[in-house]
Amino acid sequence: MGFEMIEKKELYERLDRLSERKIEMYQKDFLQTWEKSIDEIIATFEVANILRSYRFSNISSKIYDSGIAVSVFKDNSTRTRFSFSSACDLLGLYVQDLDEGKSQIAHGETVRETAVMISFLAEVIGIRHDMFIGEGDSYMREFGNALTEAYKDNILPDRPMIVNLQSDIDHPTQSMADFLHLTKHFGGLENLKGKKLAMSWAYSPSYGKPLSVPQGIIGLATRFGMDVVLAHPEGYDLLPDTIDLAKRQSAESSGSFKITNSMDEAFENADIVYPKSWAPYYIMKKRVELLKNNDTKGLSELEKECLTSNARYIDWECNESKMNLTKNRNALYMHCLPADISDVSCKNGEVSKAVFEKYRNFTYDEAGYKPYIIASMILLAKKKDPVQTLKKLFEMSQKRIIA
Amino acid sequence: MGFEMIEKKELYERLDRLSERKIEMYQKDFLQTWEKSIDEIIATFEVANILRSYRFSNISSKIYDSGIAVSVFKDNSTRTRFSFSSACDLLGLYVQDLDEGKSQIAHGETVRETAVMISFLAEVIGIRHDMFIGEGDSYMREFGNALTEAYKDNILPDRPMIVNLQSDIDHPTQSMADFLHLTKHFGGLENLKGKKLAMSWAYSPSYGKPLSVPQGIIGLATRFGMDVVLAHPEGYDLLPDTIDLAKRQSAESSGSFKITNSMDEAFENADIVYPKSWAPYYIMKKRVELLKNNDTKGLSELEKECLTSNARYIDWECNESKMNLTKNRNALYMHCLPADISDVSCKNGEVSKAVFEKYRNFTYDEAGYKPYIIASMILLAKKKDPVQTLKKLFEMSQKRIIA
Amino acid sequence: MGFEMIEKKELYERLDRLSERKIEMYQKDFLQTWEKSIDEIIATFEVANILRSYRFSNISSKIYDSGIAVSVFKDNSTRTRFSFSSACDLLGLYVQDLDEGKSQIAHGETVRETAVMISFLAEVIGIRHDMFIGEGDSYMREFGNALTEAYKDNILPDRPMIVNLQSDIDHPTQSMADFLHLTKHFGGLENLKGKKLAMSWAYSPSYGKPLSVPQGIIGLATRFGMDVVLAHPEGYDLLPDTIDLAKRQSAESSGSFKITNSMDEAFENADIVYPKSWAPYYIMKKRVELLKNNDTKGLSELEKECLTSNARYIDWECNESKMNLTKNRNALYMHCLPADISDVSCKNGEVSKAVFEKYRNFTYDEAGYKPYIIASMILLAKKKDPVQTLKKLFEMSQKRIIA
Repeated sequence: MGFEMIEKKELYERLDRLSERKIEMYQKDFLQTWEKSIDEIIATFEVANILRSYRFSNISSKIYDSGIAVSVFKDNSTRTRFSFSSACDLLGLYVQDLDEGKSQIAHGETVRETAVMISFLAEVIGIRHDMFIGEGDSYMREFGNALTEAYKDNILPDRPMIVNLQSDIDHPTQSMADFLHLTKHFGGLENLKGKKLAMSWAYSPSYGKPLSVPQGIIGLATRFGMDVVLAHPEGYDLLPDTIDLAKRQSAESSGSFKITNSMDEAFENADIVYPKSWAPYYIMKKRVELLKNNDTKGLSELEKECLTSNARYIDWECNESKMNLTKNRNALYMHCLPADISDVSCKNGEVSKAVFEKYRNFTYDEAGYKPYIIASMILLAKKKDPVQTLKKLFEMSQKRIIA
Repeated sequence: MGFEMIEKKELYERLDRLSERKIEMYQKDFLQTWEKSIDEIIATFEVANILRSYRFSNISSKIYDSGIAVSVFKDNSTRTRFSFSSACDLLGLYVQDLDEGKSQIAHGETVRETAVMISFLAEVIGIRHDMFIGEGDSYMREFGNALTEAYKDNILPDRPMIVNLQSDIDHPTQSMADFLHLTKHFGGLENLKGKKLAMSWAYSPSYGKPLSVPQGIIGLATRFGMDVVLAHPEGYDLLPDTIDLAKRQSAESSGSFKITNSMDEAFENADIVYPKSWAPYYIMKKRVELLKNNDTKGLSELEKECLTSNARYIDWECNESKMNLTKNRNALYMHCLPADISDVSCKNGEVSKAVFEKYRNFTYDEAGYKPYIIASMILLAKKKDPVQTLKKLFEMSQKRIIA
Repeated sequence: MGFEMIEKKELYERLDRLSERKIEMYQKDFLQTWEKSIDEIIATFEVANILRSYRFSNISSKIYDSGIAVSVFKDNSTRTRFSFSSACDLLGLYVQDLDEGKSQIAHGETVRETAVMISFLAEVIGIRHDMFIGEGDSYMREFGNALTEAYKDNILPDRPMIVNLQSDIDHPTQSMADFLHLTKHFGGLENLKGKKLAMSWAYSPSYGKPLSVPQGIIGLATRFGMDVVLAHPEGYDLLPDTIDLAKRQSAESSGSFKITNSMDEAFENADIVYPKSWAPYYIMKKRVELLKNNDTKGLSELEKECLTSNARYIDWECNESKMNLTKNRNALYMHCLPADISDVSCKNGEVSKAVFEKYRNFTYDEAGYKPYIIASMILLAKKKDPVQTLKKLFEMSQKRIIA
């Protein structure tokens, strides 16, 4: 996609336009994209773009000479972990991991106290907590409330901001990176209007994949006047609230939102396809109950049930015949990675080898925006006047590669 | 407690007073508070205060542009781990964890060699080794001797300093943070003279909590002319040496030191109460033997025995009726956290919900000094002329938040 | 060995000499010493020396103000892990560990994708993958090819360089540190010519030690006109390719290379001895097959077989009587550490207590060069004009210890 250097004239024009936007992200967490205004979404893209250009122009984006960033991963992660530490390092923060044990579902006093104890010198907290329906997002808010209270009570000198690195509801660093990729691919956010995006379930031999990616995609795509189609086999529903949200937002943005049980219908004439496996909402809910009760037998039965159910939809594979249904047989394929690729990572998967091969580099590009999206979210939450900060970084022009 | 900025005039006056103190901490480890003179204890508080003010004045305390800090945790830690990395990051050091396996009790060649191998570019080593009576402190000294020898033999360019992040004997980063909190609360160290501090055992449904907190508290409190009362049920003794020390020190400081088997007696008219569970000394000693012999059955029997014993003292709870015994019914409650709170973290615990709730923010404040105490310990051990270093940092006034 | 400061005149003369060497290491990985020219080997030593002098002269070697270094450890490591993070920190890089699970043998798409995903802001990747014959080196090359491809396809802004932190074939950061030690000890690389080096197998009660150290030593020693003798009991062969290499190289450098099944013969009149245990090549190959098939029973039988075989060679111990065979009874003893020391770490080991004791500090010195060797490898791969970079660092003379 190009690693463009930045020129002063263009930069300042862009910063001027940026300063005309209504941005009220200062000292706020980034938990769900739909809690941010369109101006704020655009600002997040634009600041990410500028930080990216600074790096390719060898301009340091260190806004801190010291300071702690905390990562809390209650689920495994490679991509997001590296994106988060890359983003924090870019801004000058040192990442300290909070290793609380992945299976623990904490609440109340424990969360409150932990939040404060790790935050005395912290600037930002990145949290992944995506495996438990009804738990992840509420954990982040509880965490945030504890920070706010401690800040008000003069316990903390600052209110560290929280970045949602994937909850049970949204995965904003993913969806925002995905859409920054789309704006580059289609030459601007305004060009997404009227484009058809198919967010489709796809077959996978695994079980229990979180719902936050499809929810995050429909929660963001419906804001730009796109024709969004959500496709999945009967029963593979997403969280009802996110469906309501998508309906409401698509109406507001003069786009459309439709649910179908046919992958073909979703792909028909689509500009963009995002085929990805997930577990049905009701299964994930049942699973949380079983986990809370340590019901090993129940869990193993649920897994069997779920895999049997999945197996009926083995033909939900994004292959050439499916891609031939799309606009000019040439829709843009997207994935948050890693994809289950048929005959590569498994016998039957979400996508055929040929299709993935064709779009591999597009998916890598897509992933490459995530560190800058995260850095942008942090900068916008930590700096009262982000335009001023970006100008100052440019004027100082401290080199990232010093010697 | 306030996040005061610093003004030049006041700072220089304080630095002048600091430079009049006799400080011989250069190139020395910080293992036990009682190995430091009163002047050195005061200097540690004062440097912590100044580093804290620098942070709130947006003045960088980076004394290194690169350099390694090593953390060695032979027991779990969240609070102290974050305090240590926050302190190191504040000074410009990168923390690399030495993960040796927690249960391993190493000695001799292994310790000597490891100490050298991780220290070629290290400035500071933080060690927690608190679970084994007779092992933790001696491990740190063995480690330190290896470093000294390697330094003398021209193997190491520098002698990294060791910070005790909790041993079987003392927990100086905790007790020093506790007392920095006290000096703030009571308006100066001199105001602690004559105050009554009750370091009391309290009931907990768990077993095997280390002795280093109560030992550290009586080892520090008895130096300031306080009336220190140690309370615990019969048999819940601390290490005999630390009791002797407390007696000797209280005499020297014209305070008093008393042991009682009554929580009420300790709380009676107390200005400060520190109710906390620990395991009896003889149990911890037995435990180490059993662990060395891998005697699983013996360990499980010991745990049963210990919990049965604890259960007899379920009324050793810091609740309102106990607090009503204290001076003006209003003693300052302290805890190193996390506390076992009745009806919150367990059915019966060290402290009632109401009492903890009333003092929660005080305990959080208390914890918030730890990063600065650690940074101060490091600075005082690494810099020959710490006053000069602090002046230089102020004069450079490199901003911590750069842009 | 001394921690010499650097003076400008001498530095610039050395840099002038350095700039006359033919160095083509820019944007290349450091996987095997024999892929580098003699000029490049010498340059690596010299840059390591200069970076070392900078540190002792309190001159910062930070060439980055931010940037990620990735460590991938598929085998345990303390020494190399600390060396790598110390080196990266010295240059200004933040280390993020990729924790893929140690036993996993990954290939193909997984490696390709992971390589790209962690590299968007990465400058260097350090990889240890030494336990599986036929796997480690090929993993690194696959990783590197993925990076190269992604760089060419404009997915990555830069091609991060790979440092081999130990593969199944070579252990270049070890052998290069070993030889930097030798050049110091013998007063220059040219003085190694004609010296006799005995790389000898030695008894250890453990099994499955990698072959990369002896292979790396003969692969490097045979380039300097040394008389290299490889000694091991019958059957304890190294990888055939590395033997061929050693033969070819010793001929080219007018040295000699000989294999013997007698430790005594190897030690006879040796200037340098490197006694170290390893597992026979064919055993390590069998082991990989068994591991791939999860053949626990087979693995345990193989271990038994191997230990029984080892036990026949318990007299392959580097003790005083063996040392008495060496030149002036005073050869330099070397080891990559930790050594299996008889009566210290085990009953019978690679080296007697007395011999190790005599040479302990030499082995510590030896280890102390590794961080600088790694930093040198990185600098030479990342900077097109390394002499210019070193001059710039000297001219800026940013202090490492700032205040």
